[in-house]
Amino acid sequence: MVHSSNKQIVLLSHPTGFPIAGEHLGVHTTQLNTILEEDEILLRNLFVSVDPYLRGRMNDDKEAVIPGFEIGKPFSSGGVSEVIQSRNPRFTVGAIVVGEAGWEEYTHVTAAASDGFNVIEGARESKVPLSSYIGVLGFPGLTGYGSLKAFGQLKKGETIYISAASGAVGQLVGQLARLQGLRVIGSAGSDDKVEYLLKELKFDAAFNYKKGDILENLRSHAPNGLDIYFDSVGGRQLEAALEVLNLYGRVIACGHISVYNGQESHGIRNLYQVIGKRITIRGILVNDFVQDEFANFQRDVGQHLLNGDIIYREDIAEGLENGAEAFVGMLKGANFGKAVIKIADL
Amino acid sequence: MVHSSNKQIVLLSHPTGFPIAGEHLGVHTTQLNTILEEDEILLRNLFVSVDPYLRGRMNDDKEAVIPGFEIGKPFSSGGVSEVIQSRNPRFTVGAIVVGEAGWEEYTHVTAAASDGFNVIEGARESKVPLSSYIGVLGFPGLTGYGSLKAFGQLKKGETIYISAASGAVGQLVGQLARLQGLRVIGSAGSDDKVEYLLKELKFDAAFNYKKGDILENLRSHAPNGLDIYFDSVGGRQLEAALEVLNLYGRVIACGHISVYNGQESHGIRNLYQVIGKRITIRGILVNDFVQDEFANFQRDVGQHLLNGDIIYREDIAEGLENGAEAFVGMLKGANFGKAVIKIADL
Ligand SMILES: NC(=O)c1ccc[n+]([C@@H]2O[C@H](COP(=O)([O-])OP(=O)(O)OC[C@H]3O[C@@H](n4cnc5c(N)ncnc54)[C@H](OP(=O)(O)O)[C@@H]3O)[C@@H](O)[C@H]2O)c1
Ligand SMILES: NC(=O)c1ccc[n+]([C@@H]2O[C@H](COP(=O)([O-])OP(=O)(O)OC[C@H]3O[C@@H](n4cnc5c(N)ncnc54)[C@H](OP(=O)(O)O)[C@@H]3O)[C@@H](O)[C@H]2O)c1
Repeated sequence: MVHSSNKQIVLLSHPTGFPIAGEHLGVHTTQLNTILEEDEILLRNLFVSVDPYLRGRMNDDKEAVIPGFEIGKPFSSGGVSEVIQSRNPRFTVGAIVVGEAGWEEYTHVTAAASDGFNVIEGARESKVPLSSYIGVLGFPGLTGYGSLKAFGQLKKGETIYISAASGAVGQLVGQLARLQGLRVIGSAGSDDKVEYLLKELKFDAAFNYKKGDILENLRSHAPNGLDIYFDSVGGRQLEAALEVLNLYGRVIACGHISVYNGQESHGIRNLYQVIGKRITIRGILVNDFVQDEFANFQRDVGQHLLNGDIIYREDIAEGLENGAEAFVGMLKGANFGKAVIKIADL
Repeated sequence: MVHSSNKQIVLLSHPTGFPIAGEHLGVHTTQLNTILEEDEILLRNLFVSVDPYLRGRMNDDKEAVIPGFEIGKPFSSGGVSEVIQSRNPRFTVGAIVVGEAGWEEYTHVTAAASDGFNVIEGARESKVPLSSYIGVLGFPGLTGYGSLKAFGQLKKGETIYISAASGAVGQLVGQLARLQGLRVIGSAGSDDKVEYLLKELKFDAAFNYKKGDILENLRSHAPNGLDIYFDSVGGRQLEAALEVLNLYGRVIACGHISVYNGQESHGIRNLYQVIGKRITIRGILVNDFVQDEFANFQRDVGQHLLNGDIIYREDIAEGLENGAEAFVGMLKGANFGKAVIKIADL
């Protein structure tokens, strides 16, 4: 192993509002330790996932459930990487792995951390793009698949509403629901995205939540009310959905992106709706589905992708140089599809 | 049957805020039709239940899930009554029944409505007061018992918080949780009620929610956080509980009395708490527990009452003349225990 410099995207300072590339996160080059201890591996990173929850990891919050990033240290998230050195019998050099990679050219993985990596079998002959393993076949996909299965109680003929519907999680949720015979309504933040939902993903209805009134849109697109709301946003969207939900309606509370960047939270004034209508609001975290559902998920969704029943759009930023902007943009809706940084070619 | 006049508490007009006795509801005397058709019964009412949800039935809302009262017509709610005439083979004269009675001396029950009445077996020798059948052994009790059983997932050593804890539902919920080995925290709106919770009901902690900060009170009384919040209030209480709830915490959303009288709803700004902590908020309605749980409920709670494991305080207004004030007072917390109107002696 000859490389000894390692380009990274690191945390520069803790933001309070929307992060700014160059101020709160930016590119930095450091020295790479290529000398492995027993059970360690060295990775060459190919793709890393650009996720909303990483915004929370930029905060200075020692009590956070998911530990925050340290100043001067690289971001990390789901990644697809090539093993280029190994002292760990689970990994041969040349294997393609998925696990929590640094936002950097190379990641030196400790023995303890190596447990979190898994080999993608047949990766070099894969019929799906390798980036899928951190998107539709990775944690964003499992989030949708696992939570619908565990808490959605989907029934043919019911109506589901999905916010942030063209994003990493939303795209899959809508298509899974459609395949189970539900009426699928989505919203997104641009007319292009709305068109994608209708034309490509075959949603039954879709609207741009930045235009017009959300409640009016829901009432007109869901004349029989909603049975399920898959919530990635919180605030006004959740408030509107509660009005329109039917008896025994379910809210899968997946994300609350409307407040991730220090925005003032919109106070929800109609929670009494849950009582008479016996609504369930269920907070979910993808980690809870790994053990029981990951294998089922990869089999089922993998099959749908090969069949063409499900399609999946990615928005790939080329190179670490463009990664910070890709992340900041994603938080504002600049991504069209699942946001990914491509660090290197295989 | 000689009586032909019938005193009633009727709806006078639709309130927007707190109802006023004499303006929105009041006593009125009408003529009683004592001539029964087939399957009809005539009741002499002994007790009727004074419930928060009746406030909703005073509104002019044609779309309400539970139909509203009509102007000039009597209120109705759970009642204990004596059958004084019967053309229905299910009811003999002299039977004591429970069902939806009018707030009036006598109720002429149609054939269709008679299905909603059940005979209290052994009522004349009952070891519990007859009013129990619309309180701790009636719908308020079933609300607590059924919802804890269906959605509480109570585990020994967990902590539960109960708002409106000295009321009809709250008293039983706290005692059932205590009997299952939970740490029980309650709040109520006066120091007397707080003392009752601590001294009589043996709650582990209790506070007056009108004094001091609710969140600070919860943090100090629940040093290990909350596992269950039994919510009768909504608004600020729910917001505070969400902060303090633990991983996999449960909210049983039973009532939202903080907005029943047209008060401005407190917007809840921290619903994002449900995601990372995987909290479930479950709206419930007592009617859902009747079929599967009513018999278990009456057996279990009946046994606890006889054992003295559970006690139950009632606040009995004497006579229909005092009924309107009792109802209005209950909405403001003037009741100390389950509010009931006693219409007549057996
Ligand atoms: N609980 C879990 O385990 C878990 C796992 C993965 C993801 N999540 C959550 O799921 C949600 C979606 O994540 P993702 O990975 O699929 O990201 P994504 O949807 O691909 O990207 C985020 C999108 O959020 C939308 N957005 C940003 N601010 C918004 C606002 N104020 N109102 C409405 N929409 C807004 C933007 O799309 P528009 O152009 O449409 O506005 C943006 O593209 C996030 O809340 C995330 O935290 C949760
Ligand atoms: N979902 C169902 O099927 C179902 C069935 C029965 C009851 N409930 C609900 O359960 C709750 C309790 O009913 P209950 O029959 O047991 O009545 P209750 O507690 O005996 O009487 C109502 C009590 O609410 C409290 N209260 C009034 N305004 C309040 C406010 N702004 N903040 C906090 N507390 C307030 C008062 O006590 P304080 O002095 O402590 O303030 C009052 O005594 C109500 O919300 C009711 O609608 C629901």
